[in-house]
Amino acid sequence: MYDPKPGDRLDSLDTPSMIVDLDIMEENIQKLMLLLKPLAVNIRPHSKTTKSPILAKKLIAAGAKGACVAKLSEAEVMAAEGIEDLLITCEIIGPAKVARLIELFRNHPAIQIVVDSEIGASAIDKALGESGIQEPIQVLIDLDVGLHRTGVAPELALALAQHISTLGHLKLMGVQGYEGHLQHVHGREAREKYCRASMAILVDTATLLRGNGFDIQVVTTGGTGTAEFCATTPGVTEVQPGSFIFMDSDYRNAVGGYFSHSLTILSTVVSKSASERRVTIDAGLKTLTTDSGFAEPKDMPDVTYTPMGDEQGWLVWKEDTPDIPIGARVEMIPSHIDPTVNLHDFYYAHRKGVIEEIWPVATRVLVTGLVVAYLP
Amino acid sequence: MYDPKPGDRLDSLDTPSMIVDLDIMEENIQKLMLLLKPLAVNIRPHSKTTKSPILAKKLIAAGAKGACVAKLSEAEVMAAEGIEDLLITCEIIGPAKVARLIELFRNHPAIQIVVDSEIGASAIDKALGESGIQEPIQVLIDLDVGLHRTGVAPELALALAQHISTLGHLKLMGVQGYEGHLQHVHGREAREKYCRASMAILVDTATLLRGNGFDIQVVTTGGTGTAEFCATTPGVTEVQPGSFIFMDSDYRNAVGGYFSHSLTILSTVVSKSASERRVTIDAGLKTLTTDSGFAEPKDMPDVTYTPMGDEQGWLVWKEDTPDIPIGARVEMIPSHIDPTVNLHDFYYAHRKGVIEEIWPVATRVLVTGLVVAYLP
Repeated sequence: MYDPKPGDRLDSLDTPSMIVDLDIMEENIQKLMLLLKPLAVNIRPHSKTTKSPILAKKLIAAGAKGACVAKLSEAEVMAAEGIEDLLITCEIIGPAKVARLIELFRNHPAIQIVVDSEIGASAIDKALGESGIQEPIQVLIDLDVGLHRTGVAPELALALAQHISTLGHLKLMGVQGYEGHLQHVHGREAREKYCRASMAILVDTATLLRGNGFDIQVVTTGGTGTAEFCATTPGVTEVQPGSFIFMDSDYRNAVGGYFSHSLTILSTVVSKSASERRVTIDAGLKTLTTDSGFAEPKDMPDVTYTPMGDEQGWLVWKEDTPDIPIGARVEMIPSHIDPTVNLHDFYYAHRKGVIEEIWPVATRVLVTGLVVAYLP
Repeated sequence: MYDPKPGDRLDSLDTPSMIVDLDIMEENIQKLMLLLKPLAVNIRPHSKTTKSPILAKKLIAAGAKGACVAKLSEAEVMAAEGIEDLLITCEIIGPAKVARLIELFRNHPAIQIVVDSEIGASAIDKALGESGIQEPIQVLIDLDVGLHRTGVAPELALALAQHISTLGHLKLMGVQGYEGHLQHVHGREAREKYCRASMAILVDTATLLRGNGFDIQVVTTGGTGTAEFCATTPGVTEVQPGSFIFMDSDYRNAVGGYFSHSLTILSTVVSKSASERRVTIDAGLKTLTTDSGFAEPKDMPDVTYTPMGDEQGWLVWKEDTPDIPIGARVEMIPSHIDPTVNLHDFYYAHRKGVIEEIWPVATRVLVTGLVVAYLP
């Protein structure tokens, strides 16, 4: 049975496999801490990137306060693995999801959630009231600071805070405002300028709420592209970078090389019969995402990648005939790290080519008994 | 615990969830059989679409000869579930994968594989020789009929057949030529014309090989967009359509409405504070793929969808203010069915809104013990 283990060399791994260079990943973590730790903010890395409690714990051990998760199913896995200081950064809507939230909150009372509507806040309050749980759940108001994805408009934040104050089972703790539209603005100067404007909306809203008697302790924001600007904005208390740990080509193109590519997809040349300037590798749409452009072959500047269906893709040489045989291995740098990680089951973490650890992409798998029946 | 069961109504499902309308799916299967069963071809549906042994068995029960899988990990799961008549449609390259193939073949000798290179064929032959298995593995030559993804060039097919005939552990059974580049050609007439040209390459090569003494029993090809043209080409023995069972917007735009959308992603409106003409749903890049355009909201012709990050997307109304509250459900039609299914864990198959069956996306999960540790 194929069963890769720590101690194995990368050479023995089947492909496509998601591999992490531990030296580079650890340097990325150190660099983040070097950048942000001296500043007056908490670091709450967004684990929607890694989907891994093991990595969330490594980040906490390195100095992070806790973890962000995007959604309830991620929080369920993280909490089951002992990570209590969690912020769920997307709104929780609908009876089934609210019921799951209550169940999770019952045993993990430190969990924080966000709301951006009276209807959303009231539904959670009502369910908590019916649950018999006495302790209120910690809530942040999700504020639209320009992304226009979720978040209440700044001018409506006070009314939402006042509504929340009428709900006995919610405890308003702060505000979240994620400037996701600015993470990939090219050029540090432009990115900082736009970020400062978004941060002004966020901090001003926090000030307004405090001025109206609300105890706003948390002002949370920021991603890999903006965390340093957010963290130096007076009034911001917490930042949420995620992608820095692995990086991807889209982030590198926008923010430069302070963080390095620690994660690649190991692939194999499986066919080269079609053309002199082209080979086919075993990495396609089910292995590398395309929403932010195509992946890049590592250390092959004259070669471009094009997906060719679910399981394969082309490597195309600009001029020369490729001196690469069938069976050769190629590392691919993802264009967008979060959805690419989401396509894989395991990380194979290596140091200088020897696997040290294998981490499941644990929050990708739905937590239910049904899957087990299909595993040996 | 959240634990949806047959008998539950769709209303009770959490979102995002992948749902299948059984009436429509069964009609799609019937229509395929109606189209192809009278013709002199075997039907071997491609299960890279469904990634489900349960659905592969339903197709076999409806008249299919067996199943195609794209890769070895899919074959492992299908074979473990009792489906023996399998064709792995992509080349198997590299020592780890060849070792897995041998292990699978040992207990499932009906498996067929494809090769497009001497190096690939020889590696499998050598491993089989060392395994002690006496029976040869059934091999098809993968032929490039115009897609240029994999496949030996037609003029090199005879040399590859001659090479295979020197290998004692491979038994050449036929040829595969997949015209993937033609599946989405718009317009039936153009699609048929190009397909006939590709089929000529395939059938002529089979004839050439027979003329040189090779016993070519299998000539396999075709997808949802071309299967009827392939199946009416004299000399073609087998077709491999996959997407017809669920369909997607990209296929519908190319081939029309003979098959209908049976699979949608059920999502929830989670935010509507940002704009009068826009709401945000809980389906983003980790729920709906974007490689073939964006998904479409079902039965909402004036509304377009745009992904907004990993877990959310916009629905944008052309003119009117949306009369849709937070918490409302929306069904999304995937743009590309195969990689979208690959993002989900389960199918919730319903009839008129009542769940009848729940099918795991079984070949998505790597078959290994490691995952189990992360499930309750």
